[in-house]
Parts: sequence; C-alpha cells; structure tokens
Amino acid sequence: MAEIRIMRRVLASNDALASSQLEELDRNNVLSINIMSGPGSGKTSLIERTIEALGKKCRIYVIEGDIQSNLDAERVAAKGAPVTQINTQGACHLDGMMMASVFPQIDFPNVDLLLIENVGNLVCPAEFTLPAHYNVTIVSTAEGSDKPVKYPLMFTKSDAVIINKIDLLPYVNFDIGELILAVHKLKPEIPVIQISTKTRAGMDEWFAWIEEKLAV
Amino acid sequence: MAEIRIMRRVLASNDALASSQLEELDRNNVLSINIMSGPGSGKTSLIERTIEALGKKCRIYVIEGDIQSNLDAERVAAKGAPVTQINTQGACHLDGMMMASVFPQIDFPNVDLLLIENVGNLVCPAEFTLPAHYNVTIVSTAEGSDKPVKYPLMFTKSDAVIINKIDLLPYVNFDIGELILAVHKLKPEIPVIQISTKTRAGMDEWFAWIEEKLAV
Repeated sequence: MAEIRIMRRVLASNDALASSQLEELDRNNVLSINIMSGPGSGKTSLIERTIEALGKKCRIYVIEGDIQSNLDAERVAAKGAPVTQINTQGACHLDGMMMASVFPQIDFPNVDLLLIENVGNLVCPAEFTLPAHYNVTIVSTAEGSDKPVKYPLMFTKSDAVIINKIDLLPYVNFDIGELILAVHKLKPEIPVIQISTKTRAGMDEWFAWIEEKLAV
Repeated sequence: MAEIRIMRRVLASNDALASSQLEELDRNNVLSINIMSGPGSGKTSLIERTIEALGKKCRIYVIEGDIQSNLDAERVAAKGAPVTQINTQGACHLDGMMMASVFPQIDFPNVDLLLIENVGNLVCPAEFTLPAHYNVTIVSTAEGSDKPVKYPLMFTKSDAVIINKIDLLPYVNFDIGELILAVHKLKPEIPVIQISTKTRAGMDEWFAWIEEKLAV
C-alpha cells in the first residue's frame, strides 16, 4: 500500500502548489492555458500560430515541457515570444514543483497570456493539475478518432478539444463525427475546434476562443 | 526520498518478474515482441497486418494494453488471433504484474509468437521491462522527425524502429533522414523499417524481420 499512499500525498501537495501559483497569476491578470496531446499532434505549431496572430495584441509567455531537448523552445523563441524550457529528465508530465522552479524568473506583471506546453503524452499530464485556467487537448486526424474512448481522463479534464491536421482528412481514416460524439459523451458541450496549423484552416475559431477568455 | 526508494523497488521487482516470465516463454519456444508508440501511430494496424501475413505460418497470440476499452482486442480478434485485453485503469504502461494476471490463461505450448501491444505512450512503457525478446517502437510520419531527440529512452530500449504512414509523406513535414540519424545517434545500427500499414508498402521487410527472429 505504500506506493498508493505516497502517490495520494504527491497529488494533494501538487494540487495545493498549483492552486497557490494560480492565485499569483490571478493577482497579475495573467490568463494561463495548459496545452496537452500525444507526441507530434501539433502543440508547438498551435503556439507558433497563436503568437503570430495574438502576439501584437497581448503579451504572451510560453513554458515548454519536454523530457529532453530545447527544440520546441527554439521554435517559440524564433516567433518572438519569451520562453522557458523545462526538461523533465524522464518524467512524463509537468507538475507544480517544476512550475515552482521557473515561476520566480517570469515577470508576470508584464504578461497577459501564459501558454504551457505539457510533455507529449495522452495519459500522465491529465493527472497533475497545473496553474492553468483552462486545459486544452489536441488530437491529430492521423491518430484515429478512438482516442477519447481509450484515454478518457485527458478529455474529461479538458475545457476545449482541438482536432488538428484537418488538411490530412482525405488521406487518413478519421471520423470527425465519431470523435465529437466520444468527446461529448465524456464531457457534454465542450467546444471541439477543427484546425490545421499547417494550412491555417479554422485557426480563427481558436483565436476567438482565447480572445473571449482574455476579455473575461 | 521515500518515493524514489519505492520506485526503485517497484522497478527491480518488475524486472525480476519479467525475467521469470521470459523463462516461461523460452521453455515453450515462444518469441515475444513488445510493440510501443505514442497514441495512434499504428500499433494495432501493424498487428492486424502481421496476423494476415504470418497467421497461417505460425500460431500468434496477442496481449492488448489500453487504459480503457476493448476496441483494439476486437480488431485483433476479427483477424482470427486469440487475444487478451488488459485495461490498466489509468496506468500509463503495461508491467510484469499485469502480465502475471493474464499469463496463466494462455496456452503457451500452442503459441509461437506473442505480440504485446503496450499502452499508447512514448514515455512510461520504456521504463517497465516486459517479458519480451524484442522491443519495437513505431513513429508515424504525421508526428514529426524530432521524436528520438525528445523521447530518447524509448528508442534506446528498442531493437527495431518502424516508421509508419509513409503514404502520408507528401502531405507532412517529415524528414526520414533526420529521424534515422537521430535514432542511430542513440542506438547505432538498429534497423529502421519504413512501412505503411494502410497501403502495405514496406510490410515485407517487417515480416522478414519477424521471420528471422522466429527461425533463430
């Protein structure tokens, strides 16, 4: 039983930490969005497009989570947004402790929108609450429309679902109706936004979703 | 420090369990292959094609790992192979304890090839040794060629890497040369097999790889 008791303690202390970090963001009027998906679904591309579209209207800061490498941070920095890379060194998700190690370096009074890119993984990131007002999960059309049935927690924890790579629809077996039905079975009325970060189709709906949250 | 000590104990006892399970497979001349990838890269499709091609030449048994649902087991059963579905109920990987719960039901003297489909995840499955002679990792061309740099352990632990969905190459930004270079930097000379489970391109190389292992 030891592992289970410790795991509960870890999750409880993570929740408390994330909650106090969220208060810090609220004091500074920072909107925080935690972006999750499996590997290669388009988290970094979504952030790149978002900086291009909204980077002049609001001050964006990005926290990148990866087991190793700075590849994603370099892509984000090239778009002109300040970014901090967290290397989890094997851990399959970001958590409050990792956030605590980078929060003091960030000048939150000069940030409007914090985008957190979690580790590419449809399982573990859903278990660890981060200092985020909204959780967003991306599924790519190349992955198949059965993902909500197989990885339910990730979708239950999300406030919006993005279907990316709709430009590949003619070439893959992906049933958008089936995916939306499966998502809404887990969480009715959650928005499901269809985009292509490559062709930029549907991106306006995503930008409008963020701008609505920024305006609240 | 408690979590770390316990985690080490868990991994050590898992290794011991997997090792004794592998001995059971060896006593029965069963070749066991652990197939890993992120969500939706084509693990089940690879198993379906393998049953179609080799199911008459050798007796295949499949163990399916998913957090929830029997979707993949149903697909495999439809191809005529006996299959056991493990639902991990939240866990991000299969492990020796889960194998121990299903091994007694399997008639190993009448099995030649055991295919284990791990949970869709490029992180955790690499940490837990299974009773397998070979580990195979699939990357789909839709995921981007930077995966070995971001998820090195998975590739270091693999004996073959499969690039799936090469039929999508004209429509995605995927650099096969970059991927192979990154894989070989982590593990020189490991075979990298390029396939499409959809068009069946390259599948013969995969079947030959398995048949070579079966013949040993």
